[in-house]
Amino acid sequence: MASHGSGYNSQSYNPSAPPLPDSQPALAHPYPSSTLPPPPHPIPNYYGQPHPQSNYGSVSSYGYPSFPPGTHPEVIQSFQTVDRDISGFIDEKELQQALSSSYQRFSLETIRLLMFLFKDPIEKSLKIGPKEFAALWSCLRQWRAIFERFDRDQSGRIDAMELRDALHSLGYAIPPSVLQVLISRYDDGSGRRVELNFDSFVECGMIVKGLTEKFKEKDPRYTGSATLTYDTFMSMVIPFLVS
Amino acid sequence: MASHGSGYNSQSYNPSAPPLPDSQPALAHPYPSSTLPPPPHPIPNYYGQPHPQSNYGSVSSYGYPSFPPGTHPEVIQSFQTVDRDISGFIDEKELQQALSSSYQRFSLETIRLLMFLFKDPIEKSLKIGPKEFAALWSCLRQWRAIFERFDRDQSGRIDAMELRDALHSLGYAIPPSVLQVLISRYDDGSGRRVELNFDSFVECGMIVKGLTEKFKEKDPRYTGSATLTYDTFMSMVIPFLVS
Repeated sequence: MASHGSGYNSQSYNPSAPPLPDSQPALAHPYPSSTLPPPPHPIPNYYGQPHPQSNYGSVSSYGYPSFPPGTHPEVIQSFQTVDRDISGFIDEKELQQALSSSYQRFSLETIRLLMFLFKDPIEKSLKIGPKEFAALWSCLRQWRAIFERFDRDQSGRIDAMELRDALHSLGYAIPPSVLQVLISRYDDGSGRRVELNFDSFVECGMIVKGLTEKFKEKDPRYTGSATLTYDTFMSMVIPFLVS
Repeated sequence: MASHGSGYNSQSYNPSAPPLPDSQPALAHPYPSSTLPPPPHPIPNYYGQPHPQSNYGSVSSYGYPSFPPGTHPEVIQSFQTVDRDISGFIDEKELQQALSSSYQRFSLETIRLLMFLFKDPIEKSLKIGPKEFAALWSCLRQWRAIFERFDRDQSGRIDAMELRDALHSLGYAIPPSVLQVLISRYDDGSGRRVELNFDSFVECGMIVKGLTEKFKEKDPRYTGSATLTYDTFMSMVIPFLVS
């Protein structure tokens, strides 16, 4: 297992069960130590123990896709409110609306990226069901907490260095040049310091998360590099560009 | 040069001087045989021989960036018309306007991609000067000819198979799975066959062209695969996502 010892800390070995991030970035290497998996259900402190009243799962026996056991009623209600045709799936506009009540009105660009990253891979069209919605909701909850921790003056915005630290805290250590390119998207050309609101933070972070996960699939032993054929490279990247 | 002989045809060896594409795709392998370079100046049959009246270059002695010798007056006029502050550079809205007269009103997404791919790499902001504008204009002219060749019923739209053949003709042989993802962007969900107008064709094609060029930089001997570090991978790809 020599290839595992090439400078990454012990947290980097098992991305399927990462430790919760510390408030201080702890990575020694500019390589992702962990990718936040869809949080387990039930989640303590918010979802609590499985809710006796959360029996959405039983609907599945009538053909409606079910939420994971213990999903918080607020999550279920947010989904059901927008899934007006009770199809069990919601599209981008519906997702935008569903998240608005508890988070904010995300841009459609961010919404499409979220749908692309969280939808069931076997689902060809861009729509998500209860299970994916619950995972997305939990992920956003964690990212919101990280964002608020680094938004020290509670302005609702973070700057480039805070973005770097926030991504670090989520397990992604990106090179400065990539950080610069990422943040350039939000530069309005006024010369003012670039700052990101939560929408932009989620967009940036999800790009990093998605690409990192794709790369890790091709570097299963975490050597820090991967050999890709042209076809593989194109297949990995283009979905992000056209989502 | 064994690595060059792994199934690619002889046209693939020198991307800096590709042959003009045939009407029939000739590539045996799904790897780009060539990337259309900015066409030489002057260009026969359109730009003709250097125009005696095209003396825009002389303006450079007054500090204004110059067009390549022989640039067609139409190109120069298109640029000058939108560069109202005579800064020698145009931004995305101005480029959109400049191309409208001879091509069409491209979407801002396509315009940003064009600027990102054609701007001077040392220029940090997204703006282009006369030299890059002339190269972009020439490239679009060639792509327009390819598009029209494959739009056999002159409908102004091409379908997935025609897109594949058109990209092939431009030197890009992409795998079917990537083609499917590319075209899915333009699926309106109506169930009708997806068709692309020239704007969408340029957007698709430029994504393929840009990523392919990035990949080829890492595969200079055209082996068909490249070993990338995580940082390199992220640095290659993210600029496309945030352009």
